[in-house]
Order: sequence, then structure tokens, then C-alpha cells
Amino acid sequence: MKELQLAKGVRDFPPEEKMIRDRIINTIKQVFELYGYNPIELPILERYETLAAKYAAGEESDALKEIFVTEDNGKRKLGLRFDLTVPFSRFIGMNPEMKMPFKKYVTGQVFRDGPIKKGRYREFTQFDPDIVGCEDVIADAEIMSITETVFNNLGFECVIEFNTRKLINGILEDLKIPEKKKFGVIVSVDKFKKIGEEGVEQELLQKGIKKDIIIKLFDYLRQGKTNEETLTRLKKVIKSNTGKEGLKEIEDLLVYSKEFGLNSVIFVPSLARGLAYYTGPVYEAYLNSSITSSAAGGGRYDELIGKFLGGKQRIPATGISFGIEVIVEAIKEKEKLERKSVVQLFVIPIKTRQKCIGIVQQLRKAGLNTDMDLMEKGISKNLEYANAYNIPYVLFVGEQELKLGKVKLRDMLSGKEEMLTLAQAINRLK
Amino acid sequence: MKELQLAKGVRDFPPEEKMIRDRIINTIKQVFELYGYNPIELPILERYETLAAKYAAGEESDALKEIFVTEDNGKRKLGLRFDLTVPFSRFIGMNPEMKMPFKKYVTGQVFRDGPIKKGRYREFTQFDPDIVGCEDVIADAEIMSITETVFNNLGFECVIEFNTRKLINGILEDLKIPEKKKFGVIVSVDKFKKIGEEGVEQELLQKGIKKDIIIKLFDYLRQGKTNEETLTRLKKVIKSNTGKEGLKEIEDLLVYSKEFGLNSVIFVPSLARGLAYYTGPVYEAYLNSSITSSAAGGGRYDELIGKFLGGKQRIPATGISFGIEVIVEAIKEKEKLERKSVVQLFVIPIKTRQKCIGIVQQLRKAGLNTDMDLMEKGISKNLEYANAYNIPYVLFVGEQELKLGKVKLRDMLSGKEEMLTLAQAINRLK
Repeated sequence: MKELQLAKGVRDFPPEEKMIRDRIINTIKQVFELYGYNPIELPILERYETLAAKYAAGEESDALKEIFVTEDNGKRKLGLRFDLTVPFSRFIGMNPEMKMPFKKYVTGQVFRDGPIKKGRYREFTQFDPDIVGCEDVIADAEIMSITETVFNNLGFECVIEFNTRKLINGILEDLKIPEKKKFGVIVSVDKFKKIGEEGVEQELLQKGIKKDIIIKLFDYLRQGKTNEETLTRLKKVIKSNTGKEGLKEIEDLLVYSKEFGLNSVIFVPSLARGLAYYTGPVYEAYLNSSITSSAAGGGRYDELIGKFLGGKQRIPATGISFGIEVIVEAIKEKEKLERKSVVQLFVIPIKTRQKCIGIVQQLRKAGLNTDMDLMEKGISKNLEYANAYNIPYVLFVGEQELKLGKVKLRDMLSGKEEMLTLAQAINRLK
Repeated sequence: MKELQLAKGVRDFPPEEKMIRDRIINTIKQVFELYGYNPIELPILERYETLAAKYAAGEESDALKEIFVTEDNGKRKLGLRFDLTVPFSRFIGMNPEMKMPFKKYVTGQVFRDGPIKKGRYREFTQFDPDIVGCEDVIADAEIMSITETVFNNLGFECVIEFNTRKLINGILEDLKIPEKKKFGVIVSVDKFKKIGEEGVEQELLQKGIKKDIIIKLFDYLRQGKTNEETLTRLKKVIKSNTGKEGLKEIEDLLVYSKEFGLNSVIFVPSLARGLAYYTGPVYEAYLNSSITSSAAGGGRYDELIGKFLGGKQRIPATGISFGIEVIVEAIKEKEKLERKSVVQLFVIPIKTRQKCIGIVQQLRKAGLNTDMDLMEKGISKNLEYANAYNIPYVLFVGEQELKLGKVKLRDMLSGKEEMLTLAQAINRLK
């Protein structure tokens, strides 16, 4: 065996990283459950046909090219899931008895054999709440409320931008953009934030949209100072029924958002999101941090599941996907002090190792994450070890202390030491 | 798209299953952290060379044949991990600066393209605590203590059988079993529980062990009424140094187990475990239930990591692997009442949907997992829905109630209804 290497685009997470990830995951889970979303688990391996279905990966989509393919001993072609939505659609299809609305959340690794750049990996974690079976945009408002609660509970202020595909489609109708060009325009419009007005204009010109139409389009998409201002202006100009339906959705979303107590929703008429399958409200959330990538994004996909199942039923659904990696970066930026261990207390026996086992067990029974020196190292080696893992407290147990029924507790930050009974030490630490 | 199917040997977990799995995982995590083990996360995709290394999968091992193989766009051969030990060994190798002892736990899916039978899947979850860098068997006693605590905290009594490879090797030395036959004998001896004395005898005869040697071997391996009896008998007969070292390990393990407060450890001289890489103590835990498969198993592998890294260092390590599937089965057997949802309270608006949003948000702020009817269904449909998911409480909110500042709380089990203020209802439910 030569050099040890990771596969390209995958990562190990040592404790200091994994602890942050676990904290994020626990907070997200807790919020999802407060909102009545139930956990499910879906496999990583799927039949290749399922992943590559026309309405799943899409015949010409990058997703298809980026599937990791494998085969079982029975020569069946399999693939690693590239998102959580496709396996979930298959799950809904295979469980038609599920009472609607079905609210679930799911998490796990997804895999994309794509180009690697900063913040892009081949194996990464998604965390998705979805609600299936509710056509009313009250469900979308609920998803936005979950998003705000998650970020608030993680200690962040956030901004949730939202829009609806119906509004954009309505505008494109008003502007008489030909049907087959519409999705291309949507993809470009979605890049306002990334490449600016000029960039979008360049793209649209290349896609054969005339300059005067682009000027009109940009006028439609301009954002007002308040949600109400943006809405009022658009109400005056939108003519198509699709567009009017879109505006009704925006109005409803604003009403519901208020009832949910949301503080962070901003109506952004140019927000589109780049996936073909969205049919109604779309949303994207940003943290109040220096990280510019969105921390969560999603929208309504009322046709995807149905088409995926053969097109016989229409199964409305909406949801969002939380990007763990962005949230981790934002937390690292905010928190200077890195925790390197879950251990709260490290017990150092001084020629009392065997007796210390019982003491350590009592500390654990009291609910303290406790470790001890198993190897009879010297005091300075042990202090070095506790320091290396940033363990906040150390307990010295010598023969002298044992005779007196006491232990010596040391606060590693202040260096302060106290002689205490074990019960006193437990109280001090809790 | 024709029929929807899962890949062979993988599973979906609907909420009622996933909730049990989450409960197990949370309990295990909590215990591991009480014992000072830190979480890490390792990738599912590994370079094929890493997985197939001679001391990892082993040249003739089943593991090698059962690796799911894939390839990235750069034509690099990759595989899905078949256990958590090999990726962990690679991780230790790539992070030589890690302060020893390093105590970690890791969980996640592993993949084996093997035959499917009851309880055997191609994608399943393992959960492993390991301690690296401590040669003393006090570390093995700690692993057994973790195991007992996990099962006790999950509401089970358990039995932890233990032994050490050194004792078995010592016995085989005393019996002059040729070196190249030793591992074959160990593999057969390990099957005492599964195939009985006769079965083991048959296998050993087939492996060319003479009848008189087998009789002597069985005599060595016979278990006494108590740990002390077994130990005392063996002390009289063991001659080889290896065997004596083994007996010293057993004695130490018994002493440490007592200090750890363990109630469930049983010294079983025939316990061997079927993997080639164990070098010292081995252990296997069984739940007090009708399920005969072991719920956790592991042992000491002082040579594996070092060999895996090229053989230059010796890195002692010991650990255990918890089998989530067996624990799930045992919990299902014990608990009749199935929870189908995390939701504690379902709010039914009666023409008050919009106002109910705020009420629901208050319930969530109070920490109650709350869902509401988003779709303005009728009362009986809503009660049906709450019943289908076994939700214990329902809250009716009509216009009349709103005027009075009250809500009607219904206990779904007893059918009892009460008019309460929201604050009263929250108190009642907490």
C-alpha cells in the first residue's frame, strides 16, 4: 500500500467538524418535529432507471451525467442518489396508502460526480422537509417559517427571498416570449444576484431575446423598497391570467407569513431557481454572514411526483433543502472558540487508576461526559492531553485525596483548583 | 416508467420505523459521549485500493467480492465502504498528529453485495465506538461497559460474552495444532452457539483435526457455572505462555468489569469471532429477548491499522460494532404500541384557519410538536387523519372558542374533552 488518499471530492470530518455538524443537524431535526414533520430514511443505492427517469434526472440534465453508477452481483444497474427528491418521489409512489398531507423530513448523503471547486463536493449532506398533498400556498409559508425558525435557533438572522414561478411565467407571457425559450430566460433571470443585470442581459441577448424586450423584462422584475411597493407596482402592469394567479399567491404568502410571525421574507420578482420542475412558489434563504451562497433553497413541484409515477396522478408537493456545508462555514466564522471534544471532565488518577473507574462511572451516571487516563501516564502528559482537546475541567485523584474522601477539581481556563467531595464536584460542574 | 422498485437488498424506513431507529441512535450517541468518545464522520466512497488492501478486505475474503464498485469521471476506481473499520484505519493513517488515545465513534451506512436473507441487507447501518492507542485491556473493559450501558438505557437486560484470542491461541499451541490450521479451527470453534458441539466436531474432522484432539479441545473450552470456576479450571491446564497471557487478560477483564460495575459479563472460552484480525479480547452482546442474533460484537485489533499503513507501526485498537437492525427488532417485540408520528397535538380549525396559524406557532414556541389542518377539511376527516397517525391530542378552535379566548382539547385515547385557555392547554400537555 503506497500513499493513503481519500477519493476525490469526499471528506473526513474529525471531531471538531463533526460536533458542529451534529449541532446543526440536531437543531434542524428539532425544528422540523416541532412543525409536525416526521423522519423517514431512504436508501443511497437506487435502481439506475429510477434515478435516470425522464422527469427525475431529465434526459439532458447534468444530473444524469453526474450519477455514480454501479452494478450488483446479479448484473442489475444501480446508481447512488444525486438528491433526496427522486428517492422520495419513488417512496411516495410505492406507498399510495399514505394519508395526505404527508409531512416528512429526510437527511443523508447525496453523490454527484461533477467538477470540484471550493464548497462543491462529490459526497455531501442534504436535509429536506417536504409536505405532499397540500396545494394551498399556506404550506409554502409553513416551509418558510420552518426555515426562519431553524436559522434563528442556530443563532442567525436570515433573509428569505421568495417569488412564484407563476408570476415569472405570467410576465414572459405578457412579453410574448415564445414557449420554447421560456425556460432559458428563467435560467438567466435567476442569475441576477450572481452575474448582475449586465450579465443577465448578455445571456438573454445570446438566447435571442431582443434588447427592447429585455428592458421591459427588467422593468417588470425591479424590486421595490418594500414587499407592498413591489406588489402594488406589479399589480398595475401584469395582464396575463398566469401572472395574476402569481400575484394572488404572493399576496397569500405575505398574509400567511405575517400570521406565522415571519420577519425575514422579501418578495424578489427575479428569483426563479434553476430547476425545470418548479411550478409555484420558490424560496431561497441567506444567512446574515459573509458567506454569499444560499443556506437553503426550494420550492413547489406539483407535477414532478405525478410525472415521475407515469403522469396519471397530480400530487402537489413543496419543500426546501438545507445545505449543511454553508451553515457550517457560517458557524465557524461566528464562533472563535473551537470545541475539540465532547468531554467535559478528564480524570487523572495518581496511582489510583483502579479506584478511579468507579468514580468516573459515578460522574457519568450524573450525566457528565467524562474521560479518564487509562494508561497511567504522568500528570504533565495528562494535562497536555486535556489541553490538546480543550477539555474544560480536570479532576486529580491521588491516594491522599481518596483517604480524605475528596478530589481536586481544576478549571483549565483559570487554573483555579479546589478540594471537593465528589458530590460537590458534580454540583459545581452541572 | 414501468413498475417502481427498490434496489435489491435496500430498504425505505417510514416514520414508524425511523422513529425507533432515531431513538436507538440518540441513546447510543449519548452513552458514547458520556464515556468521552467523540463523533467523527467518514465518507461512503473510498478509493478501491483502500478497501481492497490485503489487510483490509483481505485477498481471499468475502468482503472483497462483496464491494460495490464504481468509477468517477476521471476513471478512478472507487468502492462503497463495506464496514467502518477500514475507512477509520485510513483516517488514522492520514492523521498521525492525533493525540493518543483517540476515542471516537462513527456511524453510517455500509454496503455489501452479498446474498440476501432474513435480517441481511445490502445497505445497513453500523455504529462503532473505538479506542486507539491503549494496549491495556482496561480499554476493552470500558468498551464492554459502554455496551452494557447502551442496552440498559434502551431498556434491555443483556449478556456480554467475552474471551481473548490469546487464550484460544494458547490452547491450540498446547494441542500442537499446526500454524496453518489454526485460523480454520478458530472459525469452527466460534460456531458452538450456531451449530452445536456436533456441528463443530464435524467441521473440525473435515479440517483434518483428529478425534482425540477434538475431545481435548472441547474439554478446554467447556464453560463452568461461574466465571471464576471456568478461570480456575483453565489455570490448572494451560501450559503455553500465550495461553497464560490470555488467562491474565481474562483475570484483568474480570477485575476491571467489577470496578466498572458490570453485571452481565460472562467468560466464554469458545467465543472467538470469525475475523482474522482480532489479536486479544473479543466480545459479543445478546439482548434479553427472543432474538438470537448478537446485538453488538467486536474485539481488539492491535495489528490491523499498522499493517494497513504498511506495517511500520503497531497501533493498538479495540472497539465494538452495534447492529441497529437487531436492536430495532427487539424493541418492536417489546413495545406493542406503535408510534406513527412525532406529532403530540393536532390543531383543527373550524373556519378559523388563518387565526390558528398564530396559535400553532405559540404551541411550537412552548416546545410542543404541533401540526394543524392546512387544508380546511371537515372535522371528521381531520379526526380520521389524527387517528391514522396515532396523534394523542387534538385541539378544536372554532369562532365561538376564539371569542371566549378558549380552545377545546381532546384526549384521543379517552375521548375526554375540556375547554381551556391556550396557556392551560399548554400546561396540561407538558
